[in-house]
Amino acid sequence: MALIVHKYGGTSMGSTERIRNVAKRVAKWVRAGHQLVVVPSAMSGETNRLLGLAKELSPNVTTPEVMRELDMIASTGEQVSVGLLAIALQTEGVQAVSYAGWQVPIATDDAYTKARIQSIDDQRVRADLAAGKVVVITGFQGIDPDGHITTLGRGGSDTSAVAVAAALKADECLIYTDVDGVYTTDPRIVPEARRLSSISFEEMLEMASLGSKVLQIRSVEFAGKYRVRLRVLSSFTPWDLPLEEEAHSGTLITFEEDENMEQAVVSGIAFNRDEAKISLLGVNDKPGIASQILGPVADANIDVDVIIQNVSHDGRTDFSFTVHRNDYARTMDLLKTKVVPQTGAVDLIGDPKICKVSIVGIGMRSHVGVASRMFRALSEEGINIQMITTSEIKTSVVIDEKYMELAVRALHKAFDLEQTPA
Amino acid sequence: MALIVHKYGGTSMGSTERIRNVAKRVAKWVRAGHQLVVVPSAMSGETNRLLGLAKELSPNVTTPEVMRELDMIASTGEQVSVGLLAIALQTEGVQAVSYAGWQVPIATDDAYTKARIQSIDDQRVRADLAAGKVVVITGFQGIDPDGHITTLGRGGSDTSAVAVAAALKADECLIYTDVDGVYTTDPRIVPEARRLSSISFEEMLEMASLGSKVLQIRSVEFAGKYRVRLRVLSSFTPWDLPLEEEAHSGTLITFEEDENMEQAVVSGIAFNRDEAKISLLGVNDKPGIASQILGPVADANIDVDVIIQNVSHDGRTDFSFTVHRNDYARTMDLLKTKVVPQTGAVDLIGDPKICKVSIVGIGMRSHVGVASRMFRALSEEGINIQMITTSEIKTSVVIDEKYMELAVRALHKAFDLEQTPA
Repeated sequence: MALIVHKYGGTSMGSTERIRNVAKRVAKWVRAGHQLVVVPSAMSGETNRLLGLAKELSPNVTTPEVMRELDMIASTGEQVSVGLLAIALQTEGVQAVSYAGWQVPIATDDAYTKARIQSIDDQRVRADLAAGKVVVITGFQGIDPDGHITTLGRGGSDTSAVAVAAALKADECLIYTDVDGVYTTDPRIVPEARRLSSISFEEMLEMASLGSKVLQIRSVEFAGKYRVRLRVLSSFTPWDLPLEEEAHSGTLITFEEDENMEQAVVSGIAFNRDEAKISLLGVNDKPGIASQILGPVADANIDVDVIIQNVSHDGRTDFSFTVHRNDYARTMDLLKTKVVPQTGAVDLIGDPKICKVSIVGIGMRSHVGVASRMFRALSEEGINIQMITTSEIKTSVVIDEKYMELAVRALHKAFDLEQTPA
Repeated sequence: MALIVHKYGGTSMGSTERIRNVAKRVAKWVRAGHQLVVVPSAMSGETNRLLGLAKELSPNVTTPEVMRELDMIASTGEQVSVGLLAIALQTEGVQAVSYAGWQVPIATDDAYTKARIQSIDDQRVRADLAAGKVVVITGFQGIDPDGHITTLGRGGSDTSAVAVAAALKADECLIYTDVDGVYTTDPRIVPEARRLSSISFEEMLEMASLGSKVLQIRSVEFAGKYRVRLRVLSSFTPWDLPLEEEAHSGTLITFEEDENMEQAVVSGIAFNRDEAKISLLGVNDKPGIASQILGPVADANIDVDVIIQNVSHDGRTDFSFTVHRNDYARTMDLLKTKVVPQTGAVDLIGDPKICKVSIVGIGMRSHVGVASRMFRALSEEGINIQMITTSEIKTSVVIDEKYMELAVRALHKAFDLEQTPA
């Protein structure tokens, strides 16, 4: 007998017919002897409908008072879901009880609409599990220290599920979603992209933050921090798929030291076309130059991603970085007026038509020559590399946007990602 | 400065446009210097939509476990309403905060879908009022001793508003609804029917229980018990109606000893065509005969309304009573098989085509001849009276259903109800 947490997205909960199928799937796990906690999202479209009503009344205001009420309103979508799923389970002959976040309680801070989970009391849930019940808990929400309802922000139900699994020390947390796992890269760009049977947390974090949209990044961080075994799998398989098959489907996100990890050097290719590149040429190279350039950018609340500063010649250096494409114009203006004069830069150039392509893999730690293999593959396709940045388990290059698909395909092939590693 | 509770029904909350109007009306009261607590219902149609979803999953089951989930689901309708109204108030420049029943908390028993309020903690609400905020509280719901959400049953928001007013010792509780007050009788039957500017609790209770549908009867009982001044008034007046005018509109439900009470002997005519009459003729008149007849009826969970037993002749008597028309066939069967043989009744006759018409008035206590004036008026119209029953402040007659409208009109005229009393 294992303690398992299931999470179902809004599409899976989109109609009473679909909720009935979720209930049948959960019942299958219960009948196999497992203890189940289920965290469903709101029925698809419901959160948007609710927030739309609020927006009609207050199109622009974002005071804490309005945000508090938004959470009061939006949290009801999940409350309806858990009640309906509990009824569907009871109709299947499975004992079940539903709880809103405040009933567990799931304690959060008071950052309305984007709260963070602080602790989860497991007593009530454990008592119900011990009594043979399936416990259905609202995703996406909690209660702050003053007893107000909070929500975790879009995609927060993934985080709720992982946090509940962590609090209960669950054996595994299964995220049922509309993709059947994590792929070596986006199959829309590389048809040969292969589903990974497992991936490490660190790789998953890099993949998630680099643009792969399978899991909310915070839920992956949470799983890593509390060492929750996390599996992403398809919610579109028939509910009566044999349990053994279902239990091993999708992608397991696990720890490096776990057994069964694939031994590939590179696990996947991530990409991101939302960035823009900015360079200050010939700035005076003296201590404090980086903060002199990036300080005003940070003060304007603009996130900087890649940062490159090369060695200097004749007391001058070139300084480059990337920002989100939406912040490009604002950043250029800012630099022109507040930074160029102070730094003695001889030129300011920018390019919003770039993209970032990265290879990600735990194996890069112990293998040499991985980056050069990347550069060679790109060079063979005639792709010019504009910037390079590396971390322990990834290497990213900034290239012209128009080469993105070509680069991803070339790298996928260069690292043999279409083939299952031995 | 007064502390006022407003209650708005589902129609008033039916769209964001209407919610905005409710907010403007509440803001008007706040700007006049009053402290306001507002109890809105769910947006019209929402509770039915939510319960409809649940019904699709569990058409028949009514176990306590399912009922608990129904409350979990149905209570969200009001939670959305309070959040939206709080936002609309903030947009009007009025400080406001919303609470679900469990946040106040409004403590109830655990009778899911028809819970009763047991106590209301006023601390949190008082603190917000003292801080200058309008407090918006969900109607229709509370929390049971184990922390589960409960609902009070249909129309429960009236009761919530009155209970909140009682807990806060509010100066007045205003029920904004789609009628503009309590009438001497149904204006659809008597066009001359007149709105009462005030009515006593006892009269209102009799009017409510006799078929007048203005207020949920439990809310009136609650108001009587805790001496809450209750006013029923129209939600269809413009929001910018001068406050003094609005504050004195509708019907005040108050205490007999209050000043300003109308001094009419009869305040209104109530009627009910949902009843059926049953008579057992020539039963042996001996001690225990009433319970011998009505015991099996009560055991079958059938409510009995009017009960009449006349003096006996030759050791035999006739025993009559009325039940809800839906229970007529079942009651007749029951009597035939289980009661007639044991009581030696010589005949069992029934009539489902009857109605009950009642005159209600506190003044009947101190005036003689009121009932005979009623009987004379009916007699002048050639209406035969089948049964008579009286209480301290009402006299009811059972007559043929086809005479109902005629009887109501004749009585309305006989007691000069179209004229405001001196």
